[in-house]
Amino acid sequence: MSPAVDNVAPAGDCRIAREMLAGDAAATALGIELLELAPGRAVVGMTVTETMVNGHDITHGGYVFLLADTAFAAACNSRDDAAVAARADIRFIAATRLGDRLIATAYERERYGRNGITDVTVRRAADDTVIAEFRGDSRTIPPRQ
Amino acid sequence: MSPAVDNVAPAGDCRIAREMLAGDAAATALGIELLELAPGRAVVGMTVTETMVNGHDITHGGYVFLLADTAFAAACNSRDDAAVAARADIRFIAATRLGDRLIATAYERERYGRNGITDVTVRRAADDTVIAEFRGDSRTIPPRQ
Amino acid sequence: MSPAVDNVAPAGDCRIAREMLAGDAAATALGIELLELAPGRAVVGMTVTETMVNGHDITHGGYVFLLADTAFAAACNSRDDAAVAARADIRFIAATRLGDRLIATAYERERYGRNGITDVTVRRAADDTVIAEFRGDSRTIPPRQ
Amino acid sequence: MSPAVDNVAPAGDCRIAREMLAGDAAATALGIELLELAPGRAVVGMTVTETMVNGHDITHGGYVFLLADTAFAAACNSRDDAAVAARADIRFIAATRLGDRLIATAYERERYGRNGITDVTVRRAADDTVIAEFRGDSRTIPPRQ
Repeated sequence: MSPAVDNVAPAGDCRIAREMLAGDAAATALGIELLELAPGRAVVGMTVTETMVNGHDITHGGYVFLLADTAFAAACNSRDDAAVAARADIRFIAATRLGDRLIATAYERERYGRNGITDVTVRRAADDTVIAEFRGDSRTIPPRQ
Repeated sequence: MSPAVDNVAPAGDCRIAREMLAGDAAATALGIELLELAPGRAVVGMTVTETMVNGHDITHGGYVFLLADTAFAAACNSRDDAAVAARADIRFIAATRLGDRLIATAYERERYGRNGITDVTVRRAADDTVIAEFRGDSRTIPPRQ
Repeated sequence: MSPAVDNVAPAGDCRIAREMLAGDAAATALGIELLELAPGRAVVGMTVTETMVNGHDITHGGYVFLLADTAFAAACNSRDDAAVAARADIRFIAATRLGDRLIATAYERERYGRNGITDVTVRRAADDTVIAEFRGDSRTIPPRQ
Repeated sequence: MSPAVDNVAPAGDCRIAREMLAGDAAATALGIELLELAPGRAVVGMTVTETMVNGHDITHGGYVFLLADTAFAAACNSRDDAAVAARADIRFIAATRLGDRLIATAYERERYGRNGITDVTVRRAADDTVIAEFRGDSRTIPPRQ
């Protein structure tokens, strides 16, 4: 996103989330793509590669978490304040394998004070099977001067 | 570990965990090292690289989780049964940066039926600051025939 | 509910949940009322009494949990299998006081194998303010012979 | 505790926690007893009564939570700052019954900024069986003027 475009962006442009994801070397290196972004909502996708497989020959839970966490970060930064993850929990529901395409859908469930609760569901794109359910707690941070 | 050595391994050799980690492409690709392993306990280390940094210029929470999850998996596979993660939660306590060395120490807190609860503390090696607290729930799985 | 009525109850009658709640001395003693019950969904209500107030002069978090847990138990026993709570987490969002009426709404988010994930939102009836968000994990249990 | 005694209480007297528990009508009504209290640590006990039993004829999970939550509150108010629960999670490990004596032991695991993480283990007194594992997050609150 160029600064020129950014300067005229309308309200609800999710600027903080877009800049954050554009600068997220980890997400970029993993091929995580932003599919949808709106205030309080984000969808990201990732394909399981050879370096994401663990000792049980299935997708490492850490990468499922990482994808969910990226959707969470996008959703909770989709408004006017920057936010960081304070904590999160994840339930692993079904296994996936090399080559599977995963989609994580985040929506902000609650906001109160500087706190937010965001739910993320991770699905296998091929058949929409739910792979994991994630819930994360965010805290907004004061803007840098 | 060679099969010959494995055949004469004593009780408490944590064979399942060692084989699992040896075959864990994800952990290997990230340079995660197994530092200690004993029944119910595991310590692993990882150095934060350029592809582990997120949009806030700090270590992506997903990689902190992934390191903790690897220690968890090693600890809950350190006995006679193979186990998988059913769920986990993580509190993010302090940020780390590119080049920081992280150490995750896991110990199995409870075992009941096929269930286990394992606590993992992640610290920055340079000053022992606690970075994150992780608690994971495992389920043992029947052996493959 | 009389046995005669029960004998002719149609499918989807949530018999297990109704029997469980009818026998739940704890819920009865607290005046918890079942407001709605359908497969995968339950709503319960409770009014905060003098013995539910804690040292900060607000509703004891334990009673907010207990109300949410009762809605959770009703929802995850609303189908053909009996289920028990394996774990749960709760976020406390707003305080309530003596005399406040609380409503807990549970819906089953996922079922997989013998596992279920149920979300419960607790609100203050007077103004629909969200008081707490609860997520519980259930396991179905084999029927008694 | 009389004000006269209070005025000369030494450092480490856990005054905030003692006052909070003394004013906790919920804990008092349930017969919860404070067994130990020191900075960062608390032990409380409760006997399961007829109104704490649920529809599966076992102690209602809500009362196990409430006992753990009381130990948590005592531990995280045992220093110079008042604190409240922000969230908590609990794993239910074994069932207990009418007449069982339960002991909850809390220790503060981490403090960072205004945040704290406190672990609570609930045991059946008769045989020391672990009944539940609880982890709670606290936030200190500014003193009232």
